[in-house]
Amino acid sequence: MSLEVLSSNLSFGGKHVRYRHRSDVLDCSMELAVFLPPAAEAGPVPVLWWLSGLTCTDENFMQKAGAHRLASQLGIAIVCPDTSPRGTDLPGEHDSYDFGSGAGVYLNASQAPWSGHYRMYDYVTAELPELLGRELPLDMTRQAISGHSMGGHGALVCALKNPGQYRSVSAFAPIANPSQCDWGRKAFSGYLGDDQQVWKDWDASELIRAHGSDHELLVDQGEADDFLHQGQLKPEALEAACQEASVSLTLRRQPGYDHSYFFIASFIDDHLRHHSAALNRD
Amino acid sequence: MSLEVLSSNLSFGGKHVRYRHRSDVLDCSMELAVFLPPAAEAGPVPVLWWLSGLTCTDENFMQKAGAHRLASQLGIAIVCPDTSPRGTDLPGEHDSYDFGSGAGVYLNASQAPWSGHYRMYDYVTAELPELLGRELPLDMTRQAISGHSMGGHGALVCALKNPGQYRSVSAFAPIANPSQCDWGRKAFSGYLGDDQQVWKDWDASELIRAHGSDHELLVDQGEADDFLHQGQLKPEALEAACQEASVSLTLRRQPGYDHSYFFIASFIDDHLRHHSAALNRD
Repeated sequence: MSLEVLSSNLSFGGKHVRYRHRSDVLDCSMELAVFLPPAAEAGPVPVLWWLSGLTCTDENFMQKAGAHRLASQLGIAIVCPDTSPRGTDLPGEHDSYDFGSGAGVYLNASQAPWSGHYRMYDYVTAELPELLGRELPLDMTRQAISGHSMGGHGALVCALKNPGQYRSVSAFAPIANPSQCDWGRKAFSGYLGDDQQVWKDWDASELIRAHGSDHELLVDQGEADDFLHQGQLKPEALEAACQEASVSLTLRRQPGYDHSYFFIASFIDDHLRHHSAALNRD
Repeated sequence: MSLEVLSSNLSFGGKHVRYRHRSDVLDCSMELAVFLPPAAEAGPVPVLWWLSGLTCTDENFMQKAGAHRLASQLGIAIVCPDTSPRGTDLPGEHDSYDFGSGAGVYLNASQAPWSGHYRMYDYVTAELPELLGRELPLDMTRQAISGHSMGGHGALVCALKNPGQYRSVSAFAPIANPSQCDWGRKAFSGYLGDDQQVWKDWDASELIRAHGSDHELLVDQGEADDFLHQGQLKPEALEAACQEASVSLTLRRQPGYDHSYFFIASFIDDHLRHHSAALNRD
């Protein structure tokens, strides 16, 4: 078993388990959490990947989103990876909340010193599905993906770059056009260098414009979200790209909601039902 | 307005608001959180008090219990006080997790130096209902109370010592017989002195034996709870006292559940419905 169990809690009849494992892709030890619904006792269940935002670990969503209740009923597993490599102590890695540790941005870095570890995209889309599909009762032919903020960007990018891997994708307040916001420019120039053509391959709005998508995207965005007003999220760019490329997008602007987990909890059930419909389609 | 707003989030159509205020009873500045369901916009709503456990603040329950969803539907407000006076820096106050700050034990201390501040019982049962009933759309003729661990003890004791104040009471993994466990003995001897007769007035099992109760108690206890096995919780003492005093107790032993908020979240809806039935009775 390559997964070391750190802790286990019964939750809504299912199991919330935290694991540690060695990641070859990230060249470090990583922690993650899995929620297994009661149905997993009878055989492999479909999987929803949840990618978290800046500064988070595997714990935020599991503790705060209130997702176990309905996931237990629907028979869906949830996997929460961490948000960056850990324990590597690269120069400057821990100096800011929006770059380095806690801010892996779900891409493969090409620039030194990051390129040796910061490969969260390969970790999430390839290494983890292979590992978890082998070790746990998870049906990797039925995957869906969602996330929040930086993780909403990650969910969109992982789905858009891998047609066929995920049956559905959704996002909460995603960084929808990172090439054009402060968070994205800082991350992309640090991890990918200054060639903005390269950035387009990691930007959901640009990917949609270039390649389209067969997905029916579901995105919730709080209208009282400070980061929306700071121009970090840019749902309007995603909306324009989807319109241009004839991609189906349900963008729900939620009046009064902010960027917090209270916002996510308020609408997570809708996302779980969205994914359940796709995951249980034959 | 005696309540300073620290933050506000929309949550399930209701409002989660954190406040700071001056407490005369505790002689310090305190923070607390209130969830107001959408129904509070039309007029005063019934109130569920939630008392948290050791080391908690107002934030744990609000973020982790997943209670806003059903409270919003049922039209019940939730108030989460902090778990001790804050900012007082008494000698030794911050030295251990189970005494002093974060461990007010919902009693009125009689021993110096604690007696000048550690009066959480008066704070929760008298000062806060008066303050919040005056400042917020809360109907203090319809109160219920619940809590976890140290806060489960607090909920039981507040209800048992104040017949008529709370329409219903419930608890998760309460410290049900504190006179007879390590946590309780440490707290009681520190806050109340060595006279164990005095302790009985702050021990749910002893209060029931001495005075009975008209309440229909609802208690959930996880069977995989480490603190149960360490003898800190003693649901069997509560059960025996209720039987002896002919007090109605529904004690649900939940196989496999531990002491965490995953346990609370799994059963909070049952407690909300239990309280809603009592709060909405004419």
